[in-house]
Amino acid sequence: MGKRTEYCGKISRDLLGQEVILKGWVQKRRDLGDLIFIDLRDREGIVQIVFNPTFSKEALAIAEDVRSEYVLEVKGKVVERKEAVVNKKISTGELEVEVYDVKVLNASKTTPFYIEDGVAVSDDKRMQYRYLDLRRPEMTQNMILRHQMTKSIRHYLDDHNFIDTETPYLTKSTPEGARDYLVPSRVHPGHFYALPQSPQLFKQLLMGAGFDRYYQIVRCFRDEDLRGDRQPEFTQVDIETSFLEPEEIQSFTEELLAKVLKDTKDVELTLPFPRMGYDEAISRYGSDKPDVRFGLELVDVSDLVKDSSFKVFSGAIENGGAVKAINAKGAAGNYSRKEIDALGEFVSVYGAKGLAWLKVEDDGLKGPIAKFFKEDAEALIEKMDAKTGDLLLFVADKKSVVHDSLGALRSKLGKELELIDESIYAFMWIVDWPLLEYDEEAGRYSAAHHPFTMPKESDIGLLETDPGKVYAQAYDIVLNGYELGGGSIRIHTRDLQEKMFAALGFSKEEAEEQFGFLLEALDYGFPPHGGIALGLDRFAMLLAGKENIREVIAFPKNGKATDPLTSAPSLVSEAQLDELSIHTTKIED
Amino acid sequence: MGKRTEYCGKISRDLLGQEVILKGWVQKRRDLGDLIFIDLRDREGIVQIVFNPTFSKEALAIAEDVRSEYVLEVKGKVVERKEAVVNKKISTGELEVEVYDVKVLNASKTTPFYIEDGVAVSDDKRMQYRYLDLRRPEMTQNMILRHQMTKSIRHYLDDHNFIDTETPYLTKSTPEGARDYLVPSRVHPGHFYALPQSPQLFKQLLMGAGFDRYYQIVRCFRDEDLRGDRQPEFTQVDIETSFLEPEEIQSFTEELLAKVLKDTKDVELTLPFPRMGYDEAISRYGSDKPDVRFGLELVDVSDLVKDSSFKVFSGAIENGGAVKAINAKGAAGNYSRKEIDALGEFVSVYGAKGLAWLKVEDDGLKGPIAKFFKEDAEALIEKMDAKTGDLLLFVADKKSVVHDSLGALRSKLGKELELIDESIYAFMWIVDWPLLEYDEEAGRYSAAHHPFTMPKESDIGLLETDPGKVYAQAYDIVLNGYELGGGSIRIHTRDLQEKMFAALGFSKEEAEEQFGFLLEALDYGFPPHGGIALGLDRFAMLLAGKENIREVIAFPKNGKATDPLTSAPSLVSEAQLDELSIHTTKIED
Repeated sequence: MGKRTEYCGKISRDLLGQEVILKGWVQKRRDLGDLIFIDLRDREGIVQIVFNPTFSKEALAIAEDVRSEYVLEVKGKVVERKEAVVNKKISTGELEVEVYDVKVLNASKTTPFYIEDGVAVSDDKRMQYRYLDLRRPEMTQNMILRHQMTKSIRHYLDDHNFIDTETPYLTKSTPEGARDYLVPSRVHPGHFYALPQSPQLFKQLLMGAGFDRYYQIVRCFRDEDLRGDRQPEFTQVDIETSFLEPEEIQSFTEELLAKVLKDTKDVELTLPFPRMGYDEAISRYGSDKPDVRFGLELVDVSDLVKDSSFKVFSGAIENGGAVKAINAKGAAGNYSRKEIDALGEFVSVYGAKGLAWLKVEDDGLKGPIAKFFKEDAEALIEKMDAKTGDLLLFVADKKSVVHDSLGALRSKLGKELELIDESIYAFMWIVDWPLLEYDEEAGRYSAAHHPFTMPKESDIGLLETDPGKVYAQAYDIVLNGYELGGGSIRIHTRDLQEKMFAALGFSKEEAEEQFGFLLEALDYGFPPHGGIALGLDRFAMLLAGKENIREVIAFPKNGKATDPLTSAPSLVSEAQLDELSIHTTKIED
Repeated sequence: MGKRTEYCGKISRDLLGQEVILKGWVQKRRDLGDLIFIDLRDREGIVQIVFNPTFSKEALAIAEDVRSEYVLEVKGKVVERKEAVVNKKISTGELEVEVYDVKVLNASKTTPFYIEDGVAVSDDKRMQYRYLDLRRPEMTQNMILRHQMTKSIRHYLDDHNFIDTETPYLTKSTPEGARDYLVPSRVHPGHFYALPQSPQLFKQLLMGAGFDRYYQIVRCFRDEDLRGDRQPEFTQVDIETSFLEPEEIQSFTEELLAKVLKDTKDVELTLPFPRMGYDEAISRYGSDKPDVRFGLELVDVSDLVKDSSFKVFSGAIENGGAVKAINAKGAAGNYSRKEIDALGEFVSVYGAKGLAWLKVEDDGLKGPIAKFFKEDAEALIEKMDAKTGDLLLFVADKKSVVHDSLGALRSKLGKELELIDESIYAFMWIVDWPLLEYDEEAGRYSAAHHPFTMPKESDIGLLETDPGKVYAQAYDIVLNGYELGGGSIRIHTRDLQEKMFAALGFSKEEAEEQFGFLLEALDYGFPPHGGIALGLDRFAMLLAGKENIREVIAFPKNGKATDPLTSAPSLVSEAQLDELSIHTTKIED
């Protein structure tokens, strides 16, 4: 019949009266006897095609046997639909194609679920028949969006002197960080490669090689327990530069993100993005990735209640903790006592022992703890900027618990009270991160970002004396309450890198064993450098307006790290294991 | 000091008299006392910078302590060099920068080898200090070339409706094909993922999903014994389309390759590329990837010698073999008897039991077998188009040995006799491949390309009766004697795919166990489809004019599949193995 002349979804008035050849799938078929209508679908959309004996008896006869998801090749003429049957829901809805030649390219069994958006089917079934799930227009569009994003990112970086450089996937295992996926070596029995958690060290070495500006859109691997927005493999926009200040790195990253938003969503972002210190973000939002599309900020009322006769409050402060509160404006009517109890259960997950509350009424504060606020009521009302109808929610505990629990509660309330304008893309930088975190379990410090992060110049002296006080030249980029990525200036001298390893509790031997090649590289004219990595899956998820990264990954794994389509992982032959000099100590059924 | 205003290698007359800030590495330093010259290098090239007390005493003092590979930041003025000291070898050679401010950004120890092209140092040392090796202008340029190539490829495919789609790296092991790299699953003890040898099945499934045109520049993995142009991981330009004929796929691939050559080498290729059948290529060149930049074609002299009294010739033909010859034009004088014996040794590697030869002299054929060509001498001379001074080289054996050995000999002679014009990019399609190869060891057929390749329509009937005679809708693209890539139309119906698996010796159960998900997918409106995959490493190697793909890979593995830089693969902790429910049965020291 010949080449396709146009995608179904691109049939337009320009083609009126012209012959077209289309190739697509039967979305729907209506048989009126001597007249058959088929909605023909391809990746670009749907067009109605029409069969009747006037156009072709043979074609009509073939169309009679056609069923949903059959693959058709058709030749016909683009005509206008009668006004009464115009379909405004689709872009081609004013047109149809009168078919005078048709060929069935393949038949189809009845599909396990109907190919349409919003179809009610389990996630595992969708993944088992992913090739059908991806036919749904929404999913096809998600994948096209993802491609538009990477295209836009590449164009920006290509135009700004970045060199796209591939780094290895078969790398060395380093116990620092998350759990590695290992790959047994056949050639070297007992030895293993690791799949990279990120190309961090390779991109630093490329700076050592003088590449100056590197990028890669690269797969990374972490063998961690899976959550809604985690996958065993994920994709990172990985960037590294030499000779730039943090502000310069942030600045081109902003331009890059703005271009992506412009190219894919036609949204104009205002630059520069706001910047907030880590400490301030924790204090005001209880989160290092605050969603700033709404208020409900945390208010510190510790001073006000430190002498309160309500021992839960005053006691927390005595123990070095804090009391903070959220004012859910006008929400007093939204939450019954029972519903507030449920909020209390919610924050208990974050370690809070309770959620105290007050409702503001015309005649003052009401609620179980109102009696403790006789004298301070006015001061509290003023501090909380409270008005009649407001609901005040308090957590008193050690500071990390106060922040974690109120931060989570704030997010929950923001959604429940519909305070979030979903049309906004609220980007923001979180800067001035601590360099280290104290790991109470391990009894030592661990790197807040990674062991190669540069301390603030002014804090370097503290690294050996009071490491917990050292701030880092690190920055995270946050979008609508999600961490989109993070970066830092890296250490570029051996001396400082050795001090950092020591602060992390590495012996000299351990540091040499694991990172000796990096330390050696720092001896040979390593330039000052720094970069950033952006999570592509999460970014695509947010631009697609979805809540799970599986929606923007063609072939994701499920919550048990398996692929219901191919059944990976699977058992392998003894011969394969023998060749690799390994055997399994336990086999799951 | 501020931002870099220009790369060292980009200093041009446009900047004369202007202030510049440069950041780079000390390539060379000449200290004339009150006058110091430094060649400052960055990834774009080299510029000479000059220190003297007139410009700045402080800067001169600092420059005195600077050594090779120190990282400098300098501020100064671009001026013209005196004509006597113009350096025509570098693009900035007519200019220099008078430095009045300098800062040492980092020092360097003496590097284990000098940073310059063509440095004599072992491959393993180069890989151990890869970050230094990559500083050599040649290597930096190779990596930039590679990026230019992928940029060019992406632009072409983006502009032609292809969707760049990522496929998984943690996939299912399939014993068909090369050896898999396995990844033990922690969550499912005893189960393994495999790293993909190619995304073949996923790209086919994307066609099932209606994506219509897919591409991905993707890493692939094969655990095979390594050769000069093989690596455990390699990169493929992976392409799949629906509804296209082989000629259409070849046609856009040609346009794509032509664009890459134009964009990176400013070479205009003539399209379409020549096409040759597999059988003809084997017959004429003894190779399925012939280098057609030179002649030395194989001539079949079987008919002429079938009754020869030289039993080596007539015997080979009696046994169903052939006798073929190469006429090394004018090379009689190039090869002594001893050197011809060495050629005989060379072809013995390919299974040839001997290499017969004749030299053409004014008074006829000379050489040990001349006596067998008394009557046929004229006919042979005519058949071989032989002239005085030519050297005729014969192999008589079964056909595969004749072709393999003379094909290899032809390549060797082409190089030795300097018949190859290195400025030519000789692309060519090899089409009409056999579908199957008989594996004598296994006693069964195996797929010449892969088990999803579509037979020629007209041969489908033979699949069950005489599978060895079936040709495939497959095509390889060859460049200068290297296989650059290959592709095919794929099977898109369950019935035919099942027949193919049967022809390959799979039982129904085995086919279902390994490829059941593909067979099931073929039930649901799978479109006709086909594609191609191009080896990016090899393509980059050829455009860089190198002979090993390691030269165009940033961090390659060596011949033992290890990385001398990071020491991957390495031993891991027992705890790591315990978590994965595996243990090692043998440990290499």
